[in-house]
Amino acid sequence: MANPICTPKSHHRTLFFHPLSPSSPSPRRHFCPSLSLLPRNPPPLSNPLLNSNPFVPFLHPPPSSRAPMAAAAAASSSPPRVRSSLIEPDGGELVDLVVPAAERAARRAEAAALPRVPAGAVDVEWAHVLAEGWASPLRGFMREREYLESLHFNSMRLPHGPRVNMSLPIVLAIADDVKLSIGDSPHVALQGPSGNIFAILRSIEIYKHNKEERIARTWGTTAPGLPYVEEFIIPAGDWLIGGDLEVLEPIKYNDGLDHYRLSPKELRTEFDRRKADAVFAFQLRNPVHNGHALLMNDTRRRLLEMGYKNPILLLHPLGGFTKADDVPLPVRMEQHSKVLEDGVLDPETTIVAIFPSPMHYAGPTEVQWHAKARINAGANFYIVGRDPAGMSHPTEKRDLYDPDHGKKVLSMAPGLEKLNILPFRVAAYDLMAKKMAFFDPSRSQDFLFISGTKMRTYARNGESPPDGFMCPGGWKVLVDYYNSLQGEESGKQSAVTAA
Amino acid sequence: MANPICTPKSHHRTLFFHPLSPSSPSPRRHFCPSLSLLPRNPPPLSNPLLNSNPFVPFLHPPPSSRAPMAAAAAASSSPPRVRSSLIEPDGGELVDLVVPAAERAARRAEAAALPRVPAGAVDVEWAHVLAEGWASPLRGFMREREYLESLHFNSMRLPHGPRVNMSLPIVLAIADDVKLSIGDSPHVALQGPSGNIFAILRSIEIYKHNKEERIARTWGTTAPGLPYVEEFIIPAGDWLIGGDLEVLEPIKYNDGLDHYRLSPKELRTEFDRRKADAVFAFQLRNPVHNGHALLMNDTRRRLLEMGYKNPILLLHPLGGFTKADDVPLPVRMEQHSKVLEDGVLDPETTIVAIFPSPMHYAGPTEVQWHAKARINAGANFYIVGRDPAGMSHPTEKRDLYDPDHGKKVLSMAPGLEKLNILPFRVAAYDLMAKKMAFFDPSRSQDFLFISGTKMRTYARNGESPPDGFMCPGGWKVLVDYYNSLQGEESGKQSAVTAA
Repeated sequence: MANPICTPKSHHRTLFFHPLSPSSPSPRRHFCPSLSLLPRNPPPLSNPLLNSNPFVPFLHPPPSSRAPMAAAAAASSSPPRVRSSLIEPDGGELVDLVVPAAERAARRAEAAALPRVPAGAVDVEWAHVLAEGWASPLRGFMREREYLESLHFNSMRLPHGPRVNMSLPIVLAIADDVKLSIGDSPHVALQGPSGNIFAILRSIEIYKHNKEERIARTWGTTAPGLPYVEEFIIPAGDWLIGGDLEVLEPIKYNDGLDHYRLSPKELRTEFDRRKADAVFAFQLRNPVHNGHALLMNDTRRRLLEMGYKNPILLLHPLGGFTKADDVPLPVRMEQHSKVLEDGVLDPETTIVAIFPSPMHYAGPTEVQWHAKARINAGANFYIVGRDPAGMSHPTEKRDLYDPDHGKKVLSMAPGLEKLNILPFRVAAYDLMAKKMAFFDPSRSQDFLFISGTKMRTYARNGESPPDGFMCPGGWKVLVDYYNSLQGEESGKQSAVTAA
Repeated sequence: MANPICTPKSHHRTLFFHPLSPSSPSPRRHFCPSLSLLPRNPPPLSNPLLNSNPFVPFLHPPPSSRAPMAAAAAASSSPPRVRSSLIEPDGGELVDLVVPAAERAARRAEAAALPRVPAGAVDVEWAHVLAEGWASPLRGFMREREYLESLHFNSMRLPHGPRVNMSLPIVLAIADDVKLSIGDSPHVALQGPSGNIFAILRSIEIYKHNKEERIARTWGTTAPGLPYVEEFIIPAGDWLIGGDLEVLEPIKYNDGLDHYRLSPKELRTEFDRRKADAVFAFQLRNPVHNGHALLMNDTRRRLLEMGYKNPILLLHPLGGFTKADDVPLPVRMEQHSKVLEDGVLDPETTIVAIFPSPMHYAGPTEVQWHAKARINAGANFYIVGRDPAGMSHPTEKRDLYDPDHGKKVLSMAPGLEKLNILPFRVAAYDLMAKKMAFFDPSRSQDFLFISGTKMRTYARNGESPPDGFMCPGGWKVLVDYYNSLQGEESGKQSAVTAA
């Protein structure tokens, strides 16, 4: 079989972890399948790369002590021992808010008797995020104290520990009538869009939802047209309800993609199984083109040069809410599969999984969340690009955020000191070499920048991008998607004409 | 002489430090005038009061170790030794950016040859704030890194130290033509409103002034009508210029109030001279009524109960820009003098000085700045009230900020952990006792709340407030001020009618 990568239609998670594609040039490795995991006790990063100044490119290869696990394994003739993580989760321990199977019946019965709080699709996505510990040490929708810390400081102070990053308010809004119906009950049940009770929120606190202040401090603008704001904040209630979350069973979407939704715990286990000595995360919400691939492969090459023996790429598309003109998740997952299938990325050293968070498009504020969540998932390197989580200003002809602020803010952010930030080198289409290459300012006229908007326009119009912009299999996925959209639209138009 | 307090007309600073008014009930103390100061080496606060939870009222008197200086002084028969500060300035050292007298001529000559950057009155106020170290460890108008840290985290990470608080961007805006005129000069001269060159800004960095983002993240709203925004941000240039500030000589206003403008260094020296073992700061921008006085006197009583021997009150009115309907600084200073003259506050244990910062009216964001600056001035206790630095929403009928957020945010703020936050107990006019008293919710009908607006309305209309609301001398100052305003207005009106 030539395709070792799971396609969106396949439900065999193990396929993701299939060793080496035949097309890959790197040597196959054999790992002992019976490795025992040590208790989680990660050593501190003795020499964090680019931590104090992420704008300095890779200059100094680290001493061999940078890869203590691999070194220890090589030096010893006894079976190698694998650390269960490369980086400690925020707060020291991964939060897990899913009720154990044995207790579910009792909790369900309890929940059925509690006042009900309606939760929309995006609230369920946040419950998912919280339940799996992506927001560790947060244990539920924010109470006011956590909300204020997030809003004003993008971070939270732990009772006995350092400050952890927490840049987005993870909150649940309720309307006046719901507040009234809760009365003085200390706990409530959360009811999903289909009417199912999926969680309990305990020891609740209800406080005012000042939408204007939340929007201004999170987005740095209150201009109309911010996708998350229009969709989920403006229509929401005037109160926020916080508390300790208990999710009655693991949250599934039954969209054929649940096998991609690895929890932080599952990801950490897999990194250990692969004996990763570095994990570099790449957050994306767009199709992967060869510029991205160049960057990811180049990062791996650099990490190897630095002395790491087995850097693993976490290709980690965002799976929650995205704005209407972004490419939908199923299409992106299929596109990502093709990229691995076509050999652009090496499946042996790549894990593709879905990051279940919704998207805020809040630029420098949101990129911190994207990085922080990956710490919890066990990634100790984070690649940051130009204008991360950015978009056009909704009412003015300019980027909403300074494209450089994201990476700058990441380098300063409280609680992210332990994460190694890898700044994105700009790739563009090199008209001379006829492939994606790192931009060389000394011959800028040779480079063509193909934005996401331009890429979508090509695909929508059935035009081909320049050769070497994206692997043919991946490009076909996009073309088919836009064709299907146009089919739908012309279908709609015909219906309108007929009416 | 019955009045030991300096009035705004008097220039004798020493009068502020005059011992004991005859009307004060506390015993006069005699201090040795030849006390030698020890090198600054403050012990850590071993038992910070209300630090982790400022909402708990004073419950546990501290052990006698809370006042180590006074205890040591009492236990020893040798001359008492005075610590030079009770709380370390942020960054460990007070910043002083005033060029030493001997070097001024040379720097003036240098400045004259540099490109000139115009600075408005409020920029001069900020230069004053920076030059005296209120914003320590900040050494000049912010470069982009400091600006982003302030905007996103309300704090700055020091290269080798903890995070310090810095909630307001202290920035200098320039227009396109000024940027152009600077060219590639590494340094610029700052030119005040009257054309005088008063400072050099060295090793400058020029970066974009995204006004919308700055306003949204600082105020939590972009609604039109915010006083500082309308006055100083909207009309400002589209660039910010940061760098290391050197002020060519101490900044003076020549308004008859300069003697009130004690620098952090002067305040620290005075606290030591008085052998303060606790300094509690009271920030205000309004006249002092008897409710304020009750609170300040009650705070002193509680500090004494806790074992402090000599708590000193820093009555610290803000002296920079305030909005048009606030009572102007000279009137407030005269009113404060009368309050001490009338014996409402004890001059021996009170220092009245002007805090030179401009006012943002940015609520929970700004109150951090107010507290942080007082750390640098040597205050280790900070009194915080309801809705500090707040105002009405400029376009909606509500408070701009939740009145409780200020004190909550203060208790969480990075870099303020070492400061003891004293929550304001609400005082109101007790109709039964006919005086200002702490509000007793069990007989709320007996209390009359007199807001700043209401107070100004009384004074403007020539009505008397209830007996015991404010000392008569202080009240007269306000009535006279509003009378003079009406005189001016009717004068203007006559002029208009005549025209």
